[in-house]
Amino acid sequence: MLQLPLRASFYIFKSFAQPSLASITKTRAFSPSTPANMKLLYPTSLVLDPAKITGFPTLTLHPYDVKSPTLPSEHHDAEILVTWANSKDNLTYAVKNLKDLKWIQSLAAGPNDVLSAGFDASKVKITTGSGLHDKTVAEHALGLLLNAARRFYEMRDYQLQGKWPGHLGGPQPDREKGTFRTLRDARVTIWGFGNIAKSLTPHLVALGATVKGLARSKGVRDGIEVFGEDSLEDILKETDALVMILPGDASTKHALNRERLGYLPNHAWVVNVGRGTSIDEDALFEALEGEQIGGAALDVFETEPLPEGNKLYGAKNLILSPHAAGGRPQGAEELIVENLRKFLGGQELKNII
Amino acid sequence: MLQLPLRASFYIFKSFAQPSLASITKTRAFSPSTPANMKLLYPTSLVLDPAKITGFPTLTLHPYDVKSPTLPSEHHDAEILVTWANSKDNLTYAVKNLKDLKWIQSLAAGPNDVLSAGFDASKVKITTGSGLHDKTVAEHALGLLLNAARRFYEMRDYQLQGKWPGHLGGPQPDREKGTFRTLRDARVTIWGFGNIAKSLTPHLVALGATVKGLARSKGVRDGIEVFGEDSLEDILKETDALVMILPGDASTKHALNRERLGYLPNHAWVVNVGRGTSIDEDALFEALEGEQIGGAALDVFETEPLPEGNKLYGAKNLILSPHAAGGRPQGAEELIVENLRKFLGGQELKNII
Repeated sequence: MLQLPLRASFYIFKSFAQPSLASITKTRAFSPSTPANMKLLYPTSLVLDPAKITGFPTLTLHPYDVKSPTLPSEHHDAEILVTWANSKDNLTYAVKNLKDLKWIQSLAAGPNDVLSAGFDASKVKITTGSGLHDKTVAEHALGLLLNAARRFYEMRDYQLQGKWPGHLGGPQPDREKGTFRTLRDARVTIWGFGNIAKSLTPHLVALGATVKGLARSKGVRDGIEVFGEDSLEDILKETDALVMILPGDASTKHALNRERLGYLPNHAWVVNVGRGTSIDEDALFEALEGEQIGGAALDVFETEPLPEGNKLYGAKNLILSPHAAGGRPQGAEELIVENLRKFLGGQELKNII
Repeated sequence: MLQLPLRASFYIFKSFAQPSLASITKTRAFSPSTPANMKLLYPTSLVLDPAKITGFPTLTLHPYDVKSPTLPSEHHDAEILVTWANSKDNLTYAVKNLKDLKWIQSLAAGPNDVLSAGFDASKVKITTGSGLHDKTVAEHALGLLLNAARRFYEMRDYQLQGKWPGHLGGPQPDREKGTFRTLRDARVTIWGFGNIAKSLTPHLVALGATVKGLARSKGVRDGIEVFGEDSLEDILKETDALVMILPGDASTKHALNRERLGYLPNHAWVVNVGRGTSIDEDALFEALEGEQIGGAALDVFETEPLPEGNKLYGAKNLILSPHAAGGRPQGAEELIVENLRKFLGGQELKNII
């Protein structure tokens, strides 16, 4: 029986009523396998369009439920697994049962869930969805910065009490020194200067901010001066808003500690859209309560969800966001296709860890 | 005695200790006036730099307190009055006592306070500060849009109760139809397409929104298609977020009424940074409570401050901001200088009403 390329089989089905993905998969399951055939399992936890993953004649695509504690036994021979928001059970099951697995394409920004389920990067290629979240996280970070500067959180507190927050409206000092009330002429430092920072920066510059980067390796990236961590003290002292986009590994644990919080001016805000572990939350709480910094807008926490009763809920000038910056991968099909070409061509995969 | 041009007198003073503005004014008060001399009174309600208002040899600059119920009798011969955040008493006093007044330069976006104090535009030239607030109002409007889309107000409500708003974080549908959860691919309509709209639009486009304008006269402005109000129904029906930046005159009263609110999709947000009178607040309240629209972020109200007990404080999905979008004129000196040149040259003034 002829093995049709995916594009052709979609075309044939289109002449009839539009089939569900399940029926395509079912039909394919009846095709005799050749040794060259490859199975890719893709998650139904987001809207992926398999029709965009074309041009691979020997590849078959099979949807799966990321919240199921198992995977269908007929797909235990899959070589490629795409993951997004999988349950821990599901990933643990995959580790034990997908014996032919050669490559996991996660759509998350980092590989933490895949690694902690027990996948071994020395035995199976692991690639992340780094880059799929740049725009959404950048938009959220911009929103948090404006929430802080324009004090929407404080306005809300008044509104809920039925009171007019008059002190925040009407004629205001313009870009007064020692305040963070606008992005215009604000000095914004982005700590961790990868793709998200590059996506965020143009919006800040367009609003009139002066942006500097802080990272392990210094240099100029996308026209922004990125300082090394040896300049950390000097840079933090000249910062109105610090945006943290550090990855969550051992080297970044409590990167913003008590001492470094002390370098920030009293009006400076901290925005964290990276990983919660990069801030010492006890030290942050003290800095907030003691008004040693202007405030903090946190989308990530050391423990998530932040446990009920945690003191951060009520900390002065703290804006809480429930790990909501990303969570919406964009352009997943394009990344999968690019990496499929590289995988089949024997090239190094994009975002490999 | 030689009448020094202002620049020169500043230069002389600079060789000594920096004098206060008051002392400069005092010294000038001893200079003999010639008929060509002109007095400009400028407000101390914002930081104005008189050293930027140079090149007018016959002009003297005098600071005044906008909250005082009177003006100093020695300055009743002033020909030019710059106003910003004046008390009603102060303006009423100016109407009655500044008999030589030829021109009022307000730094506010509109002339409402000056007109309602009794100044007559047929007898004294009145120019507004239109343009001085574009960037600040645009930034605030952008912040309100992101507050709405990213639901910071709802996160705040949870935080204040010590609860994690888990439904707003983690994996989320990406740009789902019938929602307003991001500016990416959002259809934003700006009603009232003047300088503020032109300042706001590039930020929205950079974040991936599709922007359309709505105004009395149609056309393409700064690359954005602006529709006439004959297209209002069609445009509102295709809107995810409506930003209102209408001026506050009789013609815009209740521009957004019950019927037009009904054209908006159920998920659409209304953001108003123009004038409160342009929305029928009773109709808006009903649309919010009935979930006929997604929400409203209002910086302006029919009555300000919004009276305690007003039902809008507790309306569903209403974000209240206390007329805080502008309030920080930028580039006031440049506008004053431009209009001084035009005034002395007998040309039509910028922003004349």
